[in-house]
Amino acid sequence: MDDSMFHEDAGFFPPVDTDERLHIGVLISGSGTNLQALIDACADGTIDAVVAVVISNKPDAFGLERARRAGIATVYVDRTAYTTIAAYNHALTAALMQHGVGLVVMAGYMRLLGQEVLTAFPGAVMNLHPALLPSFAGASAIKDAFEHGVKITGVTVHFADEVFDRGPIIAQEPIRVAEDETVATLEAKIHEVEHRLVVDAVRLFAEGRLAIEGRKVRIKAAE
Amino acid sequence: MDDSMFHEDAGFFPPVDTDERLHIGVLISGSGTNLQALIDACADGTIDAVVAVVISNKPDAFGLERARRAGIATVYVDRTAYTTIAAYNHALTAALMQHGVGLVVMAGYMRLLGQEVLTAFPGAVMNLHPALLPSFAGASAIKDAFEHGVKITGVTVHFADEVFDRGPIIAQEPIRVAEDETVATLEAKIHEVEHRLVVDAVRLFAEGRLAIEGRKVRIKAAE
Repeated sequence: MDDSMFHEDAGFFPPVDTDERLHIGVLISGSGTNLQALIDACADGTIDAVVAVVISNKPDAFGLERARRAGIATVYVDRTAYTTIAAYNHALTAALMQHGVGLVVMAGYMRLLGQEVLTAFPGAVMNLHPALLPSFAGASAIKDAFEHGVKITGVTVHFADEVFDRGPIIAQEPIRVAEDETVATLEAKIHEVEHRLVVDAVRLFAEGRLAIEGRKVRIKAAE
Repeated sequence: MDDSMFHEDAGFFPPVDTDERLHIGVLISGSGTNLQALIDACADGTIDAVVAVVISNKPDAFGLERARRAGIATVYVDRTAYTTIAAYNHALTAALMQHGVGLVVMAGYMRLLGQEVLTAFPGAVMNLHPALLPSFAGASAIKDAFEHGVKITGVTVHFADEVFDRGPIIAQEPIRVAEDETVATLEAKIHEVEHRLVVDAVRLFAEGRLAIEGRKVRIKAAE
């Protein structure tokens, strides 16, 4: 592999990692407020895991800065540096494996995840979506739901599969659209719920309490 | 019109009706538990309206018996008695107009409503759907949602348009799918919420508090 494809702050070969906790790789494209919720929940012991690497397809995503501030390795994978989408996804997979990742969380990552990543981390790739799936899949879910005139929308955390926003659902929370709601106020409400729901879902995963059974995700009782 | 097409208990020409309250026509295909909720809410004054006629496309729908017990006119409109769907819908429209209906409520009516009915009662045809639309439109919504593995489903009341389960949404209520849920327990939860939600929606209509604005239904404050 040509390491010029990577732009990694922490060096292509990370130091030997002896932390035995679950290693989480977070994929982002933007400001990374959900990433921050995960970093904080790992730091304060809510989640028994460590965010090992943050990968962005945008070089200026503020989430990369959040990661650097928390001493977490960051990787910018530049889609335009790869001639094929398969090569891009191979680089993404390699970066995740390099950091010993056991769970991949797509937290505002605005690209479809390639099959190689899904195959490399079976049953261990989560996506966060700002609507009650299967309603309003796609990149403009909050606005789409608002314009559709729904009275209830919400947030979904699900395991990713090869179809955008479709895999088995781990957690959902409903949000009421108020009479005087605007897209902006709805976005604020949804982001607040997202932070809580992604932490819950990752915590359950770290505790070994999620079982995928066909399309259903069973949540096992705490031991 | 050939009155052999109708099978109406109360006679084809009803007695002169001097009740000035909103007249509701309820379309059913089955047991009519939502119809019963509406009958009860009109009787106890929760809704300032009267159920004027109950129309079924099934001759043995128990909802017809509920209506008879409450002294409400019943009509069985037999689809097979009409050569075209347009003729069937014309008969349906005529029966509703005959009873001075100002609001049509589809409460478990398992047929698509024809354009003539929608045109005859503009902005005044409601449908009740056992899911959070736009998720799980269609006739097996509860089972479909359960098998999809959603963690949140619910109930929708919406104004009907020419597309099944699509028109502007009046009210929605979320329902959590429990870990030990079955289709049967979920159905029971959903029906309970349906009874409350359809009464709320019809009450708001009767109070003149619903305003359709494009895809949105604005709920005006009580006066």
